Amino acid sequence: MKEIMAVVRMNMMNQTKRALAEAGIPSITARDCLGRGQGLVDMNLLKGAEKGFEEAVSQLGQSSRLIPKRTLIIVVPDKLVDRTVRTIIRVNRTGKSGDGRIFVMPCTDAIRVRTGESGDDALDDA
Amino acid sequence: MKEIMAVVRMNMMNQTKRALAEAGIPSITARDCLGRGQGLVDMNLLKGAEKGFEEAVSQLGQSSRLIPKRTLIIVVPDKLVDRTVRTIIRVNRTGKSGDGRIFVMPCTDAIRVRTGESGDDALDDA
Amino acid sequence: MKEIMAVVRMNMMNQTKRALAEAGIPSITARDCLGRGQGLVDMNLLKGAEKGFEEAVSQLGQSSRLIPKRTLIIVVPDKLVDRTVRTIIRVNRTGKSGDGRIFVMPCTDAIRVRTGESGDDALDDA
Repeated sequence: MKEIMAVVRMNMMNQTKRALAEAGIPSITARDCLGRGQGLVDMNLLKGAEKGFEEAVSQLGQSSRLIPKRTLIIVVPDKLVDRTVRTIIRVNRTGKSGDGRIFVMPCTDAIRVRTGESGDDALDDA
Repeated sequence: MKEIMAVVRMNMMNQTKRALAEAGIPSITARDCLGRGQGLVDMNLLKGAEKGFEEAVSQLGQSSRLIPKRTLIIVVPDKLVDRTVRTIIRVNRTGKSGDGRIFVMPCTDAIRVRTGESGDDALDDA
Repeated sequence: MKEIMAVVRMNMMNQTKRALAEAGIPSITARDCLGRGQGLVDMNLLKGAEKGFEEAVSQLGQSSRLIPKRTLIIVVPDKLVDRTVRTIIRVNRTGKSGDGRIFVMPCTDAIRVRTGESGDDALDDA
């Protein structure tokens, strides 16, 4: 079982989640984050940026390296790691800087609270 | 030492943290997140949902599967993993879909910035 | 390769990221979080606190233990773990409670979406 953390462009989140669902991979959680280089952030600009306004994104800080990103965390059985990584790359690769990064981390166990199921059984959508 | 990531209902966060504290387990961080199935989110609805307004929660997206959740991250010595998992299950199990999931991940080391203590010594509340 | 999760004071984030950059360590993502002891949170106070207003921070909850924090996640090659930890400690140690904690977690792989590079090659700033 592996935890996959993908840091992608904010406006690619829905497409990424849809592609993962189509590939049979339920995503777990999504969170905003700020990519490397961030400085102090004007929250209104950030809100605008979240809505996908490019002007807001471009003004987002004194530092030109401020990049609002979204983080997707997915926990999958080992056999689905490759498919997950390939799906995220396929959707997010534009060839331009900022396409994002994917990290694969070990995950020892998963437990579904409702049923107490553990291991890979706790990972499916049922 | 293990990192335990629990994804629970937003309105169960305080109870969960209280139960963990009573069981001698200091929680580390809590974050909002969005569970699987999320689409575009109206931030006002999300704010309302965060305050626990069920109407806001129920309107939270075009997709019926949009579920705002809260993520709790706890790092504990190996000997407290079972107690932590059981405490989270006890508080969060309603038997209905959406009770949440718990992930157990390896953690190599912890360091308390103030003192430089590392290992399990860095995990207690002192 | 290791994932380093540092939970630090909100107002120390920029200094920490600058120090890491100067030490040749690109940071990956930063997120708000709430440290242990949190209760219900007034979002306006939280916004104020995020902007660094000490009054807002001090009023942030009924519970005196509510501590808004910021989480920094960094993924580095094994050979940079020590330098990363020492840099975070140097910047954040005040000797007072609340200086934060650092967690070191195993990371199996990293992939740069744009190029498909994996392993340590995916971690540098290029």
